[in-house]
Amino acid sequence: MIIDPSKKYQPFPTVDLADRQWPSRRIQQPPIWMSTDLRDGNQALIEPMDAAKKLRFFEMLVKVGLKEIEVAFPSASETDFAFVRKLIEEQRIPADVTIEVLTQSREDLIRRTVDSVRGAKRAIVHLYNPIAPAFRRIVFGKSREEIKQIAIDGTRLIKQLTDSMPETEWVFEYSPETFSMAELDFSKEICDAVAAIWAPTPERKMIINLPTTVECATPNVYADQIEWMHRHLAQRDAIILSVHPHNDRGTAVASAELAVMAGADRVEGCLFGNGERTGNVDLVTLALNLYTQGIHPGLDFSDIDSVRQCVEECNQLPVHPRHPYVGDLVFTAFSGSHQDAIKKGFAQQSADGIWEVPYLPVDPADLGRNYDAVIRVNSQSGKGGMAFLLEQEYGISLPRRLQIEFSRVVQAFADQSGKEMHAQQIHQIFSDTYLHPANPLSYQAHHANPVPHHGTPPSDSAQISLCMDLLHQEQPQAAHGTGHGISDAQIQAFQAIGFNINIMDRSEQQVTRNGKQQSVCIIEARINDGSNQHGAAIADDATTASIKAIISAINRHALAMSSTELDMLAA
Amino acid sequence: MIIDPSKKYQPFPTVDLADRQWPSRRIQQPPIWMSTDLRDGNQALIEPMDAAKKLRFFEMLVKVGLKEIEVAFPSASETDFAFVRKLIEEQRIPADVTIEVLTQSREDLIRRTVDSVRGAKRAIVHLYNPIAPAFRRIVFGKSREEIKQIAIDGTRLIKQLTDSMPETEWVFEYSPETFSMAELDFSKEICDAVAAIWAPTPERKMIINLPTTVECATPNVYADQIEWMHRHLAQRDAIILSVHPHNDRGTAVASAELAVMAGADRVEGCLFGNGERTGNVDLVTLALNLYTQGIHPGLDFSDIDSVRQCVEECNQLPVHPRHPYVGDLVFTAFSGSHQDAIKKGFAQQSADGIWEVPYLPVDPADLGRNYDAVIRVNSQSGKGGMAFLLEQEYGISLPRRLQIEFSRVVQAFADQSGKEMHAQQIHQIFSDTYLHPANPLSYQAHHANPVPHHGTPPSDSAQISLCMDLLHQEQPQAAHGTGHGISDAQIQAFQAIGFNINIMDRSEQQVTRNGKQQSVCIIEARINDGSNQHGAAIADDATTASIKAIISAINRHALAMSSTELDMLAA
Repeated sequence: MIIDPSKKYQPFPTVDLADRQWPSRRIQQPPIWMSTDLRDGNQALIEPMDAAKKLRFFEMLVKVGLKEIEVAFPSASETDFAFVRKLIEEQRIPADVTIEVLTQSREDLIRRTVDSVRGAKRAIVHLYNPIAPAFRRIVFGKSREEIKQIAIDGTRLIKQLTDSMPETEWVFEYSPETFSMAELDFSKEICDAVAAIWAPTPERKMIINLPTTVECATPNVYADQIEWMHRHLAQRDAIILSVHPHNDRGTAVASAELAVMAGADRVEGCLFGNGERTGNVDLVTLALNLYTQGIHPGLDFSDIDSVRQCVEECNQLPVHPRHPYVGDLVFTAFSGSHQDAIKKGFAQQSADGIWEVPYLPVDPADLGRNYDAVIRVNSQSGKGGMAFLLEQEYGISLPRRLQIEFSRVVQAFADQSGKEMHAQQIHQIFSDTYLHPANPLSYQAHHANPVPHHGTPPSDSAQISLCMDLLHQEQPQAAHGTGHGISDAQIQAFQAIGFNINIMDRSEQQVTRNGKQQSVCIIEARINDGSNQHGAAIADDATTASIKAIISAINRHALAMSSTELDMLAA
Repeated sequence: MIIDPSKKYQPFPTVDLADRQWPSRRIQQPPIWMSTDLRDGNQALIEPMDAAKKLRFFEMLVKVGLKEIEVAFPSASETDFAFVRKLIEEQRIPADVTIEVLTQSREDLIRRTVDSVRGAKRAIVHLYNPIAPAFRRIVFGKSREEIKQIAIDGTRLIKQLTDSMPETEWVFEYSPETFSMAELDFSKEICDAVAAIWAPTPERKMIINLPTTVECATPNVYADQIEWMHRHLAQRDAIILSVHPHNDRGTAVASAELAVMAGADRVEGCLFGNGERTGNVDLVTLALNLYTQGIHPGLDFSDIDSVRQCVEECNQLPVHPRHPYVGDLVFTAFSGSHQDAIKKGFAQQSADGIWEVPYLPVDPADLGRNYDAVIRVNSQSGKGGMAFLLEQEYGISLPRRLQIEFSRVVQAFADQSGKEMHAQQIHQIFSDTYLHPANPLSYQAHHANPVPHHGTPPSDSAQISLCMDLLHQEQPQAAHGTGHGISDAQIQAFQAIGFNINIMDRSEQQVTRNGKQQSVCIIEARINDGSNQHGAAIADDATTASIKAIISAINRHALAMSSTELDMLAA
C-alpha cells in the first residue's frame, strides 16, 4: 500500500440530487428477480458447468420460483448454444418462465444469439456495451457518439431479426455496461436512443439494466444514480428499470436494496452471490431480507439446504459458514447469554404468532433448518474441544455441521457426569453414537463387479453391480443394486430394500490405526426424505466405509424417528 | 416459508428524519478502528483460540496498525483473564495501543474485569446491557427504568473502582446492546444518564457504542438512527460515537459506511468479518474501500495474504474465494473480454500514476497480490479443464490458487500447439513443471528419529531429528535439523542449508497408482521471503512427499528468480 493513495486513486463522483426521495422510502413489494447464475455466474467458474449441471441448476431455479433466467452467452461457446437449443427442443421451459440470452453488439454474434432462441415461446435478448470514460478511451479508443452508435446498431439489428420471427414473444434488454462509472447524462442519452429504436410501450415494455459492473462507490451513490435515471429516462412508463450490482466493495446487497427504493423494478443476481471476482448480488439474501419484513419475495427457500447443495456442487465453490440465512454457523449460538435469551424467546412466543426470538432474525424452521445451541468447547479447559481432541488423537476430522451436532451429544454427557471429558471418552461417545448402532441395519459383507459391456468402451461411470449382505432387524437380508459407479450402485441397493438415500455431503479420510491404514467415511444424508442425518464409519477400504456410513445414517434416522414417536406418545 | 409472512414478521420501524444530512456526505477520513477479533470473533468460534493463537493474532493486529484492540471477556473465562494478565505482565502492549475488555453490568463481573487490566498504561472498560423492548420483556422482565438503572449502577461501580487506580489511564465505553431494535428516545435517555455519571469532557471523552446486535433493517435506517443520536446526545462534544454492525442481512459494510457519513467516529469489527452468526463488519473491506478512494485508512494490508493466513489459522474458518480484496478469485479474470480490457489498462497506465485499469478497483500489487488471467477451461470442450482432468484421471486435486497458476502454464502449451489438450499431456506438463525439476536441489534419501528425552514424558510435539541427503547443484549435500514434530524439523533442516521456508498452505492426499497407495503433498510457500511458490510431490510416504514438495517449491523459486534476472538483463 502506498502512503498517499490520493496520488493513485481518485474518489468516485457523487450525484447532485438534493431532493432525493429514496432515503424516506421502504420496499413494499418484491422486485422482478432475474437469475444470471447460468451466464454471469457460470462465466466466473474455474470449471464452467457442463450441460448436465446447467440443466440441474436450471431446474432448481424453476423450482425456487425464478420467472426470468439468463441461461447462456450463446455466441461465446458451443456448449452454451447447445444448452439453449436443448432447453427449447426438449420443451424444458415452463410456460411462465422466460429465458434470457446475452450478446455483445456485433452482427455475427447477434445473429447467432437470436438463432439460439428460435422457437422459444418468450425470450429476452440482452444487448450490452461498455460506456464509461475509461472504457471508451482505454479499451475502444472511441468517442461518445461512436459508443452510442454501437448500441443503436445492435438494437436495430435485433429489432429487424426478431420482427421476422413473430412466433416468439420477444423482450429486449439493454445494459449500458459500466453504468456506475459513466456520466449520467450520457447513460440517459444512450438509453433513450436505444429505446427510441426499439419503441417500447407501457403494454410491451423493454428492460433497461443499469449495472455496477465494478462496484466503485458507497451504495447511496448508486441509489442516487438510479433515482436520477428513474426520474430522467424519456419513456419511463415503457421501461422496466433493472439493476445488476457487483460486490467489489462488499455492499452489493445494500446497493440493490437502496436501488429498489430509488425506483428499480427488477434485480439481476446469483444465488449466494456467485459471479466475476467478488460476485454478483446474492438473490437469496435479498429475498429473505424481504421475507423477514413480512413481504413474501415470490421465491421459495423452504428447503435452503438443498438449494445450497445444488449450487455448491454445480459451482464447485463453497458457501461461507457465516453467509446470511444459509451458512453453517448462522443459526448457531455459542455464547451462554445468547443461548439463554433464545431459549426464553422460544418459550414465550406470543399467541399472535409474531416472531420475536432474540438473536434470530428469522425462524430457522421456515428455511428447513434448526437452531443449534453449541457448547463453548475449549481445548484449553479440557471440558470439551471434542473436534480438536478427535482430530489430534484419532485423526478423525469432523465436518462442521457434524461438529455442531456432536457437540450437543458430548454436552449431554458432560452435563450428566459434571466432569471433564478426555479424548478417549469423546471417542467412545463418537463410536457409540455413530459407529456401533446396529438397529435396524448392520453390515456383514459385500461384493461388487463391473457389469460386462458390449460394443462401447468402458468409461468413468461404468456400470457396477453390488450385492450387500446385511442384517435387517437381526435377520439376514441381501440387497442388490446396479448403478453408474460404486456410489450409485450403493444407493440403488439401499433403494431396493426400502431406503431412499439422498447424499447431501460426503467426506473421506485415511487414518492410521495400530500401524494399519484405514478409511473413514462421514456422510450427511436424507433417509426417506426425512431431515438430514450424519453417518460415520471406519473400515479397511473406502467402499466398505462408504456402505457402513450410509447404514450409520439410516440407524440414526431410525433412532430420531422413534424418539419423535415417543415424544408424540408422551404429549 | 409461510405464504403470508406479514402474519409472522413485522417490518422494522423507520426514523422520522426528513432533513437527514448523511446522504449528501462522503467519508473524508478514516474512523478510529477497533478490532474485536479476540472477543466477539473469538466467542463465535467452534474452537476458541488458545493463548498462543490469541497472542499471534494480537501481534498481527498490532503490526497491521490497530490502536484499539478488545482482547478479552475476562470475567467469562479463565483463559481470557489469564491472557489479559499475560499481555500486561509481559509488557506486550505497545505504547500507542490501548487494550479493551468487555463486561456485563454485574458487580462481581465488573470487579473481576477491572482487576484483569490492573497495571495497564491505558485501558478501555466496555460495559453493555441489552435495552430493546423484546429483550426487556422476554429476557429480563424489566421496565425501562429498571434497565436504565442496570447501566447506571454498572457505570457508577466502574467509576468508583477506576478512580482508585490512577496509575492507569481509563477510558469508559458504554454499549446499549440491541440499540438498532430499541426506541431512539430510550437509547438517548440511557446514554445521557450513563454519561452524566461518568462525566466525560471534550478533553477526556467517553465512547458511546451503538450496535446492530442483530441487523434488522436496510442500512439507511441505521444511518438515520446514528444521525439522530449524533444530533441529540446531550454531551456530544465529550463523546466518541462508535458503531458495531453485524451482518445478518449482508449489509454490515454498508451500515458502517453510511453510519460514518451520519456522524460516527469509530467502528468496531473483525478482520474478514468474523463474529457471532453472520459475523461482525469486516474491517479489511472498510479500510480498503477507503484506500481505493484515495484515503489512507491507517491500517496496512500490504501483505494481505499473510494477514489472511494468520486469521484462517487462528479462527479455523476459511475466507471465501470471492471475499472482497482478499479472496482467491477477486483478482482473477476468466472472461476473454475482461482479460483484454485489463491488458490494455495495464499497457496504458497514465503518466500521472492514476489507477484506471478496467475491472480492477485496486492495484493487486498494493496488497502484495498479482493479477491472474485464467483460461476458460471447459471439461466439455476438451481444450483444458486441467484441474478436472487431473482429478478424474490421476486423483490429484489441486488447491484453488494452484489451479489458477497451473492453468496459465497449460494455456501457454495450448497456445503453442494450437491443439486440444488431453489428460495425459496435462499430467506430463504438471510433472515437468512441479515434480521433475532438480535444480538447484534434488532429493536422495532421509532418516528421522525422535530425540531421546529425559524426565518429561513425550508429547505430541516431541523433538525430531531429521537428516536429509540431497543433491545441491548436482553435488551431494546433507542437511540436518531438529524441531518439534517432523514438519518443524524439515524447516530447520532447509534453514541450515540456506533456505528460509515459510509454509503458507499445505494439502496432503492419498492416491492409488498401479495398485499402490501413494502420498501427494502440495504446498504453497515463501522461499527466502520471495513471492509465494507452489511445490508438489508424489512419494510412497507422507514425509518423503512433504520434503520433496518443499524442494519443488525451492526449485520453482529459483526458476522464477532466474527469469526475473533474465528479464532485467533483457530490459
